Amino acid sequence: MKLETREACLSADAKDPLRGCRERFTLPEGLIYLDGNSLGPLPRATPALLNRTVREEWGRDLIGSWNSHGWMALPESLGDRIGKLIGAAPGQVVVTDSTSVNLYKLLHAALALRPGRGIILSEEGNFPTDLYIAQGLKDRAELRMAARGKLPAAIDENVAVVMLTQVDYRTGALWNMKEMTRAAHDAGALILWDLSHSAGALPVDLDSCGADLAVGCGYKYLNGGPGAPAFLYVSRHLQENIRTPLSGWMGHAAPFDFSMGYAPAPGIRRMLCGTPSVLALRALEAGLQTFADTDMAALREKSLALTGLFMALVDRHLPADTFEIVTPREDHLRGSQVSIRHAGGYAFMQALIEAGVTGDFRSPDLMRFGFTPLYTRFTDVWDAVEHMVTIHRDGRWREKRYNRRQAVT
Amino acid sequence: MKLETREACLSADAKDPLRGCRERFTLPEGLIYLDGNSLGPLPRATPALLNRTVREEWGRDLIGSWNSHGWMALPESLGDRIGKLIGAAPGQVVVTDSTSVNLYKLLHAALALRPGRGIILSEEGNFPTDLYIAQGLKDRAELRMAARGKLPAAIDENVAVVMLTQVDYRTGALWNMKEMTRAAHDAGALILWDLSHSAGALPVDLDSCGADLAVGCGYKYLNGGPGAPAFLYVSRHLQENIRTPLSGWMGHAAPFDFSMGYAPAPGIRRMLCGTPSVLALRALEAGLQTFADTDMAALREKSLALTGLFMALVDRHLPADTFEIVTPREDHLRGSQVSIRHAGGYAFMQALIEAGVTGDFRSPDLMRFGFTPLYTRFTDVWDAVEHMVTIHRDGRWREKRYNRRQAVT
Repeated sequence: MKLETREACLSADAKDPLRGCRERFTLPEGLIYLDGNSLGPLPRATPALLNRTVREEWGRDLIGSWNSHGWMALPESLGDRIGKLIGAAPGQVVVTDSTSVNLYKLLHAALALRPGRGIILSEEGNFPTDLYIAQGLKDRAELRMAARGKLPAAIDENVAVVMLTQVDYRTGALWNMKEMTRAAHDAGALILWDLSHSAGALPVDLDSCGADLAVGCGYKYLNGGPGAPAFLYVSRHLQENIRTPLSGWMGHAAPFDFSMGYAPAPGIRRMLCGTPSVLALRALEAGLQTFADTDMAALREKSLALTGLFMALVDRHLPADTFEIVTPREDHLRGSQVSIRHAGGYAFMQALIEAGVTGDFRSPDLMRFGFTPLYTRFTDVWDAVEHMVTIHRDGRWREKRYNRRQAVT
Repeated sequence: MKLETREACLSADAKDPLRGCRERFTLPEGLIYLDGNSLGPLPRATPALLNRTVREEWGRDLIGSWNSHGWMALPESLGDRIGKLIGAAPGQVVVTDSTSVNLYKLLHAALALRPGRGIILSEEGNFPTDLYIAQGLKDRAELRMAARGKLPAAIDENVAVVMLTQVDYRTGALWNMKEMTRAAHDAGALILWDLSHSAGALPVDLDSCGADLAVGCGYKYLNGGPGAPAFLYVSRHLQENIRTPLSGWMGHAAPFDFSMGYAPAPGIRRMLCGTPSVLALRALEAGLQTFADTDMAALREKSLALTGLFMALVDRHLPADTFEIVTPREDHLRGSQVSIRHAGGYAFMQALIEAGVTGDFRSPDLMRFGFTPLYTRFTDVWDAVEHMVTIHRDGRWREKRYNRRQAVT
């Protein structure tokens, strides 16, 4: 699809099979939001669902709601809904805790499933919290890191588990899940996929790739709200033998017997730990509703068209030596974001945000733009690049006020 | 205070210095709710605060809210507010994760702080998830349990940490925190207090007792909503050396540098792990507002008057051989609940709930009644016992339908 004019973009929006999905969100008037890879926007259904949960379930029915409103079942029922987006048959995904806590559980468990192997292998530059959590297990395993190109070859007989993020949070580069899973298995290792930047952004096929373990985030492409609960996946073939170190009461075989000895629940439920926030779960439920009846292949097609258009327009209108696109051009090698290296990236992004285009910035010099097919339009891409061109030409980003750093960008 | 008639109870309610606090809650009309020790009721302020957070912070200001609405600071600012209820000076409490996850962090850390000692000592019959979490650390330490009366003597030179729940979830029995903390320290052990059934129920004095570590629950007496985030306390003297095994990005010294190596934040913030649910934190914030300007000594005085009245009325109107009060009679030995052993306790509680008095049941035969001074009235106590007497006399609880067990009671 070549979109050479704004009119062509308007026409593409009018023909977009996903155009109706934008109505599922409450987006601030006039804002071009290209940061759904960091925090998904508010779904239109969320306030009412939360309000009902607060007033009718908690407020009116109180403690009885754990049964009467199905609170106990939410980690599994929402897990199965996420399973549909990531190619996991029912009974293999639960929503629980944070991505970091879930990584800890699965890395710890993976080491126990591969006794005698003392290495967690990951990629240099993987998402920091993934590496930090692996470092927290340093008395059980050593974290070894390899550059992307050297990774398959680095999987040897000492590696217990390979931990990779399917879509790189900086560059948007996409791993071939099937190939890397096979490479891990060929060396006798398990593989753990972090799907934080892929769940809801593109079709994922955990089961058909033979993946072992996965975690992911609820507040990015899944639109579950700030700090939404995360999810984890354990392939059915591992469930009988897997043990979580965080053996809390929600993962007990009989949580209401109040017996003094821990016994893991059958199936994926054993990976739960403490009592989950019902309000946070309900917000994630509303987030997942934004995917209702969405064909993931159509979503992927639009995602690639959006990122492709953005790169083509940047190429055409902005100098490549100042705006270096670091995201792979080949469709099968990228996720749903585009990252641009720019020496003044922080200040440039601040100026862009002030102009009404929200992306974000990652040190030292990367501007990130997330393209979420459910609500991003082709005209948004066009207009975003127009703003970039204007800010580049008038040079306003060099003003001092745009370079005052804040904690979060 | 002797309240011999319902009129005397009405008069006590009219003179109650905390009577205005009931207005801070939305309680269903006609319900006598004696289960705030399991799930606190909906505060009146919660729906509006949540709605504002959802629509204005998340919906309108999106990712920028992490700074502009202080989301990043919530774990510490709410922690300091809880600190006021539990006798902890600022900078020692954070709100994060679940009670179970926090127990894991602190037990793991305590073992590292007492190298060469391999025992976690707890009480037989302690809250199950506390014991389960200790069992999850079985390759680092052995869980030893002692009966209540034998506990101080069981602390020997092999005990790294003593883990106790200040108020027993079954009987309501209250530990003397100062004495037990001293006993642990005399043997060179650390002490970890679970405050789930005491925070917000009675004055707690962590700092002045010299306690080392504590955890607690946000959804019982703190009214933070179902599955609200939990809290943890690390005494300032331990903060420099403590390390969490769950070393996630929120506890990093520079979380937005995205460096590849973990470095713990200074102070209590290092005990954070992943991204917290902002919606759940805001609901807890509204829960904590129900304690605004509340004198904890006055709260304790009313709590003891409520539980004392309940026991006196049960003594007077119900047969002691059928209704055995297992909660200590001495004020300084009980928390804010009363538990009654009854051979048909499950069915009796079901009949009582149907009659409009919500307590709960713990296997095999305990009926639990929580008395929360912010909203429970003396007339509620009177009326609850009247319902019990009626159900005992007419024997309806023996009907089969009351004995159909459900997952949660």
